[in-house]
Amino acid sequence: MSSANGLVCFTNCLLPQEDGGLVERDLWIDERRGVILDSQLAFFERRERPDRIIDLGGNILSPGLIDIQINGAYGFDFSVYDGDEEAYRQGMKLVAEKIVETGVTSLVPTLITQEKSLYPKILNLLHPFSTPTSATLLGWHAEGPFIDMAKRGAHAPPFLLSAPEGIKSFESAYGAHNLVDSEDWLMATEGQCGVRIITGAPEIKGVVGAVHELTKRGVVFSIGHSAATSAIATAAVMQGARLITHLFNAMPQLHHRDPAIIGLLGASPHLSAPAIDDFPTPTSPSAASAVSGVTSEAFDYQTTPGTRPTVNRTASVSELHLLKGQVADLAFERPYYDMIVDGIHLHPNSVRLAYSAFPEGCILITDAMKILDPNLRDGVHEWRDGKRFVKEGDKLYLEGTDTLAGSVITLDKCVRNFSRFTGGSLGEAIKCATFNPAKCLGIENTKGTLRPGADADLVVLDRQGIPVSTWVKGKQVWGIPVN
Amino acid sequence: MSSANGLVCFTNCLLPQEDGGLVERDLWIDERRGVILDSQLAFFERRERPDRIIDLGGNILSPGLIDIQINGAYGFDFSVYDGDEEAYRQGMKLVAEKIVETGVTSLVPTLITQEKSLYPKILNLLHPFSTPTSATLLGWHAEGPFIDMAKRGAHAPPFLLSAPEGIKSFESAYGAHNLVDSEDWLMATEGQCGVRIITGAPEIKGVVGAVHELTKRGVVFSIGHSAATSAIATAAVMQGARLITHLFNAMPQLHHRDPAIIGLLGASPHLSAPAIDDFPTPTSPSAASAVSGVTSEAFDYQTTPGTRPTVNRTASVSELHLLKGQVADLAFERPYYDMIVDGIHLHPNSVRLAYSAFPEGCILITDAMKILDPNLRDGVHEWRDGKRFVKEGDKLYLEGTDTLAGSVITLDKCVRNFSRFTGGSLGEAIKCATFNPAKCLGIENTKGTLRPGADADLVVLDRQGIPVSTWVKGKQVWGIPVN
Repeated sequence: MSSANGLVCFTNCLLPQEDGGLVERDLWIDERRGVILDSQLAFFERRERPDRIIDLGGNILSPGLIDIQINGAYGFDFSVYDGDEEAYRQGMKLVAEKIVETGVTSLVPTLITQEKSLYPKILNLLHPFSTPTSATLLGWHAEGPFIDMAKRGAHAPPFLLSAPEGIKSFESAYGAHNLVDSEDWLMATEGQCGVRIITGAPEIKGVVGAVHELTKRGVVFSIGHSAATSAIATAAVMQGARLITHLFNAMPQLHHRDPAIIGLLGASPHLSAPAIDDFPTPTSPSAASAVSGVTSEAFDYQTTPGTRPTVNRTASVSELHLLKGQVADLAFERPYYDMIVDGIHLHPNSVRLAYSAFPEGCILITDAMKILDPNLRDGVHEWRDGKRFVKEGDKLYLEGTDTLAGSVITLDKCVRNFSRFTGGSLGEAIKCATFNPAKCLGIENTKGTLRPGADADLVVLDRQGIPVSTWVKGKQVWGIPVN
Repeated sequence: MSSANGLVCFTNCLLPQEDGGLVERDLWIDERRGVILDSQLAFFERRERPDRIIDLGGNILSPGLIDIQINGAYGFDFSVYDGDEEAYRQGMKLVAEKIVETGVTSLVPTLITQEKSLYPKILNLLHPFSTPTSATLLGWHAEGPFIDMAKRGAHAPPFLLSAPEGIKSFESAYGAHNLVDSEDWLMATEGQCGVRIITGAPEIKGVVGAVHELTKRGVVFSIGHSAATSAIATAAVMQGARLITHLFNAMPQLHHRDPAIIGLLGASPHLSAPAIDDFPTPTSPSAASAVSGVTSEAFDYQTTPGTRPTVNRTASVSELHLLKGQVADLAFERPYYDMIVDGIHLHPNSVRLAYSAFPEGCILITDAMKILDPNLRDGVHEWRDGKRFVKEGDKLYLEGTDTLAGSVITLDKCVRNFSRFTGGSLGEAIKCATFNPAKCLGIENTKGTLRPGADADLVVLDRQGIPVSTWVKGKQVWGIPVN
């Protein structure tokens, strides 16, 4: 046995389990390869001794946190690109290197709705990215432009689009080369496709019909900024939608006779197939509105440059009918849903209600704006397009309005809030910021887990959930140095 | 061993368990005493042999169903009294004797809001009641008159009341002798107090302050026909409210920043005490509205005979503050909630969302109107006050409106719907119509259970949940006679 085998054993610590529990157990990593080891195998079978034993003093050793919706941080806004590629790359690097102080080791940079010509330029830059001491940018999350005017929140009305040509409209907006599935994208270097998540409104013309193809290409389609009825939301899930963006915000309230998107948390696989069959035939538009929750129309945008778009309605029952054949073989699974648990966007009872209804689907996000910085002062700050936002504690809104404009909360604080709001353990809260988002993205063997072979991206939290140190690929990158 | 000991053994049957399971096991009853026996004790220890062994052919042997909200049936309306006591008693008897065909063996007759002078007259008649072959009327459920004008549904506006004198207003409305707790009320004969449930809106002046005293007197206070905010609804629960009337209907939708009454299903005991402390001081009314979900006002009715009442607002923050001292020692428990699972009042996803969030609190009710009768035809039917309602299948609404007016569904069908909507087993659905309502009323040792010593009120259901036979106090009272 070499005395410098690169093996590290963390001891005297609690490990979050995939069932939400916390168990006192050692964790072995290989700091040279930057991966987690099978402790049983290393210690008992191969009889190896670690180079270093790190006593964590009873703290929690968690997988690094994963934020799948974050608009920017430390003054950099992923949605702002002024033509200077190098400056944009520096911004990506800045965020990736600083965010580790919040316990985050993976994130999906999120673009709000852009002027169409900007998408290909920005998305070409937002490939998977990391430095040896930074968190990993996993790719990109496009929130828009295929969203509903009525639920646009802070998104710019002139830039919203419908998708009359289905998947081709998506390719046209984001650039076809940005929607190619890259099998080995997690190992990707610059130049490889970075698409991860697209938030869209399935009731917008052409959108629901594109979900299946997007899903096939490895995109997580997320229902958000949407006024979809129960029927349309269900159809989107049957087509492959596997996420709901900031649950409760920018969507219809839960109406008991049409619980719509929020109601998907209560959807039963036993009922969903018949629900699809309930779609009336296109030749009977009046029957359409008679069926509870089924709209007979989809929304389309009629845009004239420089003017506010008007909404046209075109029959979407036909769209849904075209899907019926494809749908038959697809299984219904309730989608994941993410929530901004900053105590501002959602009442604690709403958080607990959703979580109790479907704990396995719960994901915590920050939806943070560029001013995210744990040390930032309250006050008015510049945003974009001449707009400004106001920060008051964890609250952030457009100046002169009461429209919430994302958040300024850090993900580690969301974890603590969540535990407090639900009365659950820190282990359950951690799961919603690690294992659940990883599963949603399909990367749970590599990120958000302590499984052998996974990246040794770790955060040490004290018993109150406050980050003590952060580790990336086996190296400590933040916190008071340990021996 | 006597050959006529009155012991009956049901065999080849599935017994619903208190955890929602279904287990193949025999059930012994004593048909002379009309109670369920400890099968272990009877068979193994006392080595008794039953007089009769009844082979149920693999069907389910359930506790008889309990309906805690039913307005009438078979043409009789508990809310209509024309001065003829004998006719009213005949109506009670009619309902009690016929309802057993729907598997119901206990029910709480429910009065909608009455002209004030009618309450004492009707409540004097609605004492616990049964015949040897009938279901048991357990007492009464008054839905109103202390409800919110804005959420009145089909209740008559001129009859709504506030409670400026707190408990005295309740005594004045229902009659003081009708609010006396009768310790042994289940064994009560005519003449004993029958109060069981009062549905009221805690935001109405004086109501929340009376909940504690009502609870002490054995009343189940149920939040319903109410626009209460999260803060007021929480205060009501801290005071003892232990039920929510027809969840989702006649209350605010779930708003994510003030989830209000529905949000109570997500309320955590860990947060509720601080929530109460959040009430601003009465001297600072502006601060009141600044606190999320806290209204600074309560609703009061200013009634002039013959006119439609106008709503006055008076400070209720002071009311809530008066409660703070009392509240400190009370534990917070999420309230039970009942739902009308007829496929009309609620979307299946709403039902499953609520149930997933808090399964132990779920209660099925019919909220059935007087025309409840499994064999009734569709069409227009007389109601009261010159109004008529329309029945279309399981749907019932006020003629000329789209206001739902209770339901026409039977409780056994609610059980089947619930199982289908939630994808759960019949055992779970049965629990929501037997054990849960019994626990809510505090009678789970006597009704809604198969515990030894409980009344042998039973219903045999086939594997689809369709009633086959009904038994009351050990005697079969409906269905094809068994040998």
